[in-house]
Amino acid sequence: MSTIEQVVNKTKSEKALRAKETLINFVTKIEKELESYFDAEIKNSFGVSKKERDLSIHVWKHIKEHNLRPAKRIRGSFVYYGYRLFKNDKEEDLLKASMCIELVHTALLMHDDFMDQDDTRRGKPTTHEYYKKIHQDRKYRFAPLHYGESMALNIGDVALLAGHQILGEVNFPENRKLAALNRLLQGLVNTGLGQAFDVTLEAGGQAQEKDIFDLHLAKTAIYTYENPLHIGAILSGASGNDLKILTKYAIPGGIAFQLQDDILGLYGDPVKTGKPAHSDLRQGKMTLLIIKALKNGSPAQVKRLKEIWGKRDLTESEAGEARKIVKDTGSLDYSRDISRSWARRAQKAIPDMLKKGWNKEAINYLDGVAQYMVERDV
Amino acid sequence: MSTIEQVVNKTKSEKALRAKETLINFVTKIEKELESYFDAEIKNSFGVSKKERDLSIHVWKHIKEHNLRPAKRIRGSFVYYGYRLFKNDKEEDLLKASMCIELVHTALLMHDDFMDQDDTRRGKPTTHEYYKKIHQDRKYRFAPLHYGESMALNIGDVALLAGHQILGEVNFPENRKLAALNRLLQGLVNTGLGQAFDVTLEAGGQAQEKDIFDLHLAKTAIYTYENPLHIGAILSGASGNDLKILTKYAIPGGIAFQLQDDILGLYGDPVKTGKPAHSDLRQGKMTLLIIKALKNGSPAQVKRLKEIWGKRDLTESEAGEARKIVKDTGSLDYSRDISRSWARRAQKAIPDMLKKGWNKEAINYLDGVAQYMVERDV
Repeated sequence: MSTIEQVVNKTKSEKALRAKETLINFVTKIEKELESYFDAEIKNSFGVSKKERDLSIHVWKHIKEHNLRPAKRIRGSFVYYGYRLFKNDKEEDLLKASMCIELVHTALLMHDDFMDQDDTRRGKPTTHEYYKKIHQDRKYRFAPLHYGESMALNIGDVALLAGHQILGEVNFPENRKLAALNRLLQGLVNTGLGQAFDVTLEAGGQAQEKDIFDLHLAKTAIYTYENPLHIGAILSGASGNDLKILTKYAIPGGIAFQLQDDILGLYGDPVKTGKPAHSDLRQGKMTLLIIKALKNGSPAQVKRLKEIWGKRDLTESEAGEARKIVKDTGSLDYSRDISRSWARRAQKAIPDMLKKGWNKEAINYLDGVAQYMVERDV
Repeated sequence: MSTIEQVVNKTKSEKALRAKETLINFVTKIEKELESYFDAEIKNSFGVSKKERDLSIHVWKHIKEHNLRPAKRIRGSFVYYGYRLFKNDKEEDLLKASMCIELVHTALLMHDDFMDQDDTRRGKPTTHEYYKKIHQDRKYRFAPLHYGESMALNIGDVALLAGHQILGEVNFPENRKLAALNRLLQGLVNTGLGQAFDVTLEAGGQAQEKDIFDLHLAKTAIYTYENPLHIGAILSGASGNDLKILTKYAIPGGIAFQLQDDILGLYGDPVKTGKPAHSDLRQGKMTLLIIKALKNGSPAQVKRLKEIWGKRDLTESEAGEARKIVKDTGSLDYSRDISRSWARRAQKAIPDMLKKGWNKEAINYLDGVAQYMVERDV
C-alpha cells in the first residue's frame, strides 16, 4: 500500500469512527426518551377492565423489552440529523419525533421474524417465540405456535401504529407534522410492497443481480435511509429540492448498508449481530453473495451451494461449506467492493450539502456514517 | 301481541328499514369512490423495476377484489354521517375520507383470517389461502401456506397504512385531518390491544359473562362504532362534548352489533353472512351464547357443548347439536334480548342529538341503524 493510500484509508476510517461516536451518543439520548415513553405507555395502558388492562401492560412491557435490546438506532439518527441539517432547536421534541421510526422498526422486525421463522432477535426470543412459550407455560388451548404468531402479528400492528402516533402527537407545527406523517405512511406502504416482492423472489428461488439491487433499493434504501432523512427534513420545513439532495445520498447509502448487512448475515458473528446463525442461508435469502457465486462458481460449487441454500435443517458444517464457496468464487470480495462503491456514491451528495450551507456537524455525520456502515461488523 | 305492541314493532321495523335503505344508498356511492381509488393505485403502483411494479399491481388488484366483495360498509357510513351530523358540504371529499376505515377494515380482516385460520371471507378465498394457491400454481420453493400467510401479513400492513394515508391526504383543513388521523391511530392501537385480549381469552378457554361485554366494548364498540363516528365528527370540527354524545350512542350500539354478529356466526346462513360455516364454533370463539349455555345447561349439555366448542374438525351434525344446546338452554333468547336492550340503550342518545339541533337526516340514520343492526340476518 502506498503512503497516499494509507493516508486516504486512515482518513476514511477516522471519519467512520467519528460518525460511530456520534451515533453512540445519539443512542444514549434516544434510549432515555424511549424508556420514558414506554414507561408512560405501560402506566396508561388501555383496557376496559382490569383483565384487559393487565394484558395491555404485558404487551407494552414486551414491546419495551424488545425495542430496548441493543440496536444501532440508525433510522432514528437519520430523523434527528435530517432535521439538524436545517435547524438547531427543539432538542427534546426532536428526540421524541425520532422515536417514531424506532417503534415502526420494532413492528416490522416482529412481522419479519414471523415471515423468516426466526427464533431469536438480538439474542433474545422473537415475539412469536416469546408468546408461544407463554402459551405452553400457562397450558392454554390449541396450538402454542399459532398463538405466538397471532400475538406477534397483533403486537406488531400495535407498535406500527403507535410509531405513527408518536409523530402525529409530537410538538411540531401541525402542517409539518401532517406532511411528515403522510411521508412516513407513503414510505411504509412502499416498504410493504417491497417486502411482498422480497418474499415472492425468495419463494420463486430465481433472481438476477439486478433484482437484488432493485430489492435493496425498494426495501432498505427507501425504508432505512430515505424515509427517516426525509421525515426529519420535512419536520424542519425543508423544500422539495432539499429532499432531492437527501435522496441522492440516501439511495446509494442504503444499498451499501444492505449489501454489508447481507455480508454480516453470512459471515458475521451472531453474538455481535444478534441475528440467529445462518438464518439468511436457511431461509434461502436472495443476496448478491449467493447470486454471484451461483453465476461464477464451478459446476460442483454451484451444485453444492444450491443444495445448502434454503435448506431448513442446515448444519454448522454445511454453512461453513457455503461460506467457503461464496469466498472461493470471489463473490465475497465482489460484494464488499460493490458495497464500498455504493457508499462512495452516497458521499458524492456531500459537496451539494456543503454548498447549500447546511449544518456542518450533521453533514459530517452523514458523510461518516456512509463509511461506517460498510466497515461495521455489527 | 296487543295493538300497541304491533304499532311499536312496526314503527321500529320501519325505522330499521329506512336506515337500511340509507345504508344501501351509501354503499353504492362509496363503492364507486373505492373503485376509482383502487384503479388509481393499480395504475400508479410502486416499483423500482418492472418486476416489482408487476407484483405491486398484483397486490393492489387483490386488495381491490377483497375490498369490493359485498360488505355492509357500516364503518364507512359512520364516518360519513358522523360528519353529516354537523356539516352538509364537501360530498365528494367526505366520501373519499369515509374510505379510510374501509381500507383499514380490509387490513384487519386479512390479519384476523390468518389468526382464525379461516379459508374463506365473503364467499371467496382469504388472502393467505389466495396466495397459498398462487404458490402451488407457480411451483415456488418452501411451504405454500407460510408464503400465503406472509403475504397476508404484508398486504394487510399495506392496506392498513394506505387507509391512514387516505385520511392524511384527503381535501380537508390540515388541523382537522391531523386530529382525525391521530384519533384513528389511537383507536387502532387500542383495537390491536383488544384483539390481543381476544386471542388470549380464546386460548385461555375460560371467560365470564363480564369478559364478553368487556371484549365487545374493547373491540367492536370502539372500533366499529366510536372510531368512525368520532373521525367524521372531528373532520367537521365537532367539540369534545359533541364526541361524548356520540360515544353515548356508539358504545352500547357497538355491543348490540357484536352480540347480533355472534348470533349470526352460530345461526346465520353462511351464504348470506359470507363467513365460513361454524367458524366461530370451530375456533372456540368466546361468545355470550356459549358462556351462558355453559352456565345454564344441564351437566350433559355442558359436557357435550365443551366437546364440540373449539373442535377443529367439527362435523355438520356436531354444529347442529351445539346450536340446539345453545337454543334449549335459553341462551339464544338471552343473547337476543340483551342485544336488543343494548340497541335501545344506544337510542337513548338520540334525544340529546335532537336537542343539540344536529342534522335530522343523519340522526335518523343513527337511530334506525341501531335497530337494523340487531334485526339483520347478514
